[in-house]
Amino acid sequence: MFITFEGIEGAGKSTAIEFLVNYLQAHGYDPVTTREPGGSALGRRLRSLLLDVRTTGLASRAELFLFLADRAQHVAEVIRPALEAGQVVLCDRFTDSTLAYQGYGRGLDTEYLRSLNQAATGGLQPELTLLLDLPVRCGLERAGERNRAAGIAIAEGRFDSESIDFHERVRQGYRALADEEPERFAIIDAAQPPEDVVLQCRSAIEAHLRRRGRGLD
Amino acid sequence: MFITFEGIEGAGKSTAIEFLVNYLQAHGYDPVTTREPGGSALGRRLRSLLLDVRTTGLASRAELFLFLADRAQHVAEVIRPALEAGQVVLCDRFTDSTLAYQGYGRGLDTEYLRSLNQAATGGLQPELTLLLDLPVRCGLERAGERNRAAGIAIAEGRFDSESIDFHERVRQGYRALADEEPERFAIIDAAQPPEDVVLQCRSAIEAHLRRRGRGLD
Ligand SMILES: Nc1ncnc2c1ncn2[C@@H]1O[C@H](COP(=O)(O)OP(=O)(O)OP(=O)(O)O)[C@@H](O)[C@H]1O
Ligand SMILES: Nc1ncnc2c1ncn2[C@@H]1O[C@H](COP(=O)(O)OP(=O)(O)OP(=O)(O)O)[C@@H](O)[C@H]1O
Ligand SMILES: [Mg+2]
Ligand SMILES: [Mg+2]
Repeated sequence: MFITFEGIEGAGKSTAIEFLVNYLQAHGYDPVTTREPGGSALGRRLRSLLLDVRTTGLASRAELFLFLADRAQHVAEVIRPALEAGQVVLCDRFTDSTLAYQGYGRGLDTEYLRSLNQAATGGLQPELTLLLDLPVRCGLERAGERNRAAGIAIAEGRFDSESIDFHERVRQGYRALADEEPERFAIIDAAQPPEDVVLQCRSAIEAHLRRRGRGLD
Repeated sequence: MFITFEGIEGAGKSTAIEFLVNYLQAHGYDPVTTREPGGSALGRRLRSLLLDVRTTGLASRAELFLFLADRAQHVAEVIRPALEAGQVVLCDRFTDSTLAYQGYGRGLDTEYLRSLNQAATGGLQPELTLLLDLPVRCGLERAGERNRAAGIAIAEGRFDSESIDFHERVRQGYRALADEEPERFAIIDAAQPPEDVVLQCRSAIEAHLRRRGRGLD
């Protein structure tokens, strides 16, 4: 079972995944949590390049190819082996982030991006994608507070420091992607308090398992 | 004028470029020399990742996308601005290296690689490509001696340490590419002594300029 979490900065993806791990373990699953960029050793080196605000003047194609390199390594080294070992994989961002950020956000052609995603993943697709949707200002405020609290206002902020318009395009892009593939996506109202967000995520996972004729113990 | 230099490890690309710079300056040109991977600040970080033998287990698609990220940034930040400023650009490895190494060497589809090269370069192609061709063993011996002399036997050797068969496929791949585009390529007999290699390169550049209706002063 391969589940991905998507949404703008500060939507609460990492927070939701943390809670869902406990829930899945309590139901006898052995979940692996991972993220992009940065799910492999190579990816961790790329992550610091990609997210650091000190990385200036990065050409949009160069950014794109770095994300794809991270993904190709992540799938080969981490995700495929875990799925083959029968584990549940919860992945914080995946192919839809490329479509939303580099496609809708930066204006690269989404059909072309799909073919690159296909090359990077060897065709691996999430079974279920939870889109944590909320107003842009709300997400950016949360991310800003989190970063200030952690003292990393400067360390990891290349995307946080994009314009509101950019993030608005990303949000609307995600919603368009969800509309195109209603079977795979579940839209979660992420403006709610954490407990409520987690409940919505649990329901979506349970509904997905029922559709697949499986259930949680 | 955009000229690229291609060939297996130890063919003598860097050596030839060094000599040609003086020659072009003596004829009133203002050449810029650059290389891949590593022609931009981003590229220098990627180069150490890509060439370091300690980078193990790199998925072939991840390797490919890292080279493309390097190229996209290099074209945007270094090559295009220099060409637009009217400079001659001498580039040590470019798009043909991807076709020869990732295509013929690693077995990725060359048509697909061409479309990725196109995306990374925005369609920029070399006017002239000098293929420094020589037997694989000869090139690897030279590169080995150079590395030993510089004490970097381990620091930069991920490709040097590939099998003879791999390098043989790369060499034959380069020759096939040259056969496909005889107008763009000049094949240089790189097994000759340095002075002779440089003379062949000069002749190829002069012939190219004559074909274009230009000449060296
Ligand atoms: N439902 C929620 N209500 C209020 N605050 C929340 C909620 N979920 C998460 N937060 C807080 O908002 C901040 C951002 O959450 P989190 O880091 O999980 O977001 P994210 O989607 O992973 O962001 P990023 O894309 O930047 O990694 C954190 O400080 C977190 O504690
Ligand atoms: N024509 C030549 N004859 C003999 N030795 C040569 C010749 N050209 C270069 N060399 C020597 O061979 C070694 C490799 O040459 P060089 O570094 O220029 O190759 P290269 O094609 O740039 O290799 P790489 O792809 O590894 O960068 C160097 O030590 C160089 O001095
Ligand atoms: Mg997060
Ligand atoms: Mg060299």
